[in-house]
Amino acid sequence: MSYRCHVFVCENARPDGGKPSCGPRGGVAVRAALERALAAEPALWGQVAVTGATCLGPCFDGPTAVVYPEGVWYGGLAPEDVPALVREHLLGGRPLETRRLLRLRAEDGPALRMPGQGDPDEGE
Amino acid sequence: MSYRCHVFVCENARPDGGKPSCGPRGGVAVRAALERALAAEPALWGQVAVTGATCLGPCFDGPTAVVYPEGVWYGGLAPEDVPALVREHLLGGRPLETRRLLRLRAEDGPALRMPGQGDPDEGE
Repeated sequence: MSYRCHVFVCENARPDGGKPSCGPRGGVAVRAALERALAAEPALWGQVAVTGATCLGPCFDGPTAVVYPEGVWYGGLAPEDVPALVREHLLGGRPLETRRLLRLRAEDGPALRMPGQGDPDEGE
Repeated sequence: MSYRCHVFVCENARPDGGKPSCGPRGGVAVRAALERALAAEPALWGQVAVTGATCLGPCFDGPTAVVYPEGVWYGGLAPEDVPALVREHLLGGRPLETRRLLRLRAEDGPALRMPGQGDPDEGE
């Protein structure tokens, strides 16, 4: 494994009027904030990589990100979430549950759930 | 885990005259070829995702890609490599060794090695 965590932040930008796209909704700002935050955490240098991504898929739940190798998906991200994301996930090793996209599996189809949206399987 | 394999292909494009960039060297074409190949493999639908990436880092070894969760890095990719990549890695579960970037770890610094370049640690 090259990096302990590799964070991909969706920066997709599509023309106005169709599906929402993560980049202008905050994805670009989230990646920039994440890069600034990592630059201030020497313990993470060389351990965590951040990369922008073309469309990650769950557009209506954006801005989205995915962290590998653990395969933890996030949605509804804003730059203000970055300190907690760094503290909880990247330093602490615990997903930031308040922004986690749950049940993102092929068999679930398009119906993603955010915490607090009444999914009976939330937290499984 | 949402996808069994998530392939990120570097599509970075920087102005001419500096470091090489993966997108125009073949990264864009590799991603397109990979998406076409996956569309023709129903066994991989919903199992494998392909996403374009901004700079993945090892620019001189591009076009690059990384496959998660296994964290296997590739370099020197061309569209002609896609059938073997699909057959060996995505269907067969074995990295395509002829295009693998070896020793891509933080402690290795920038000196990446491609197979056959005389790295005594090749294949470790």
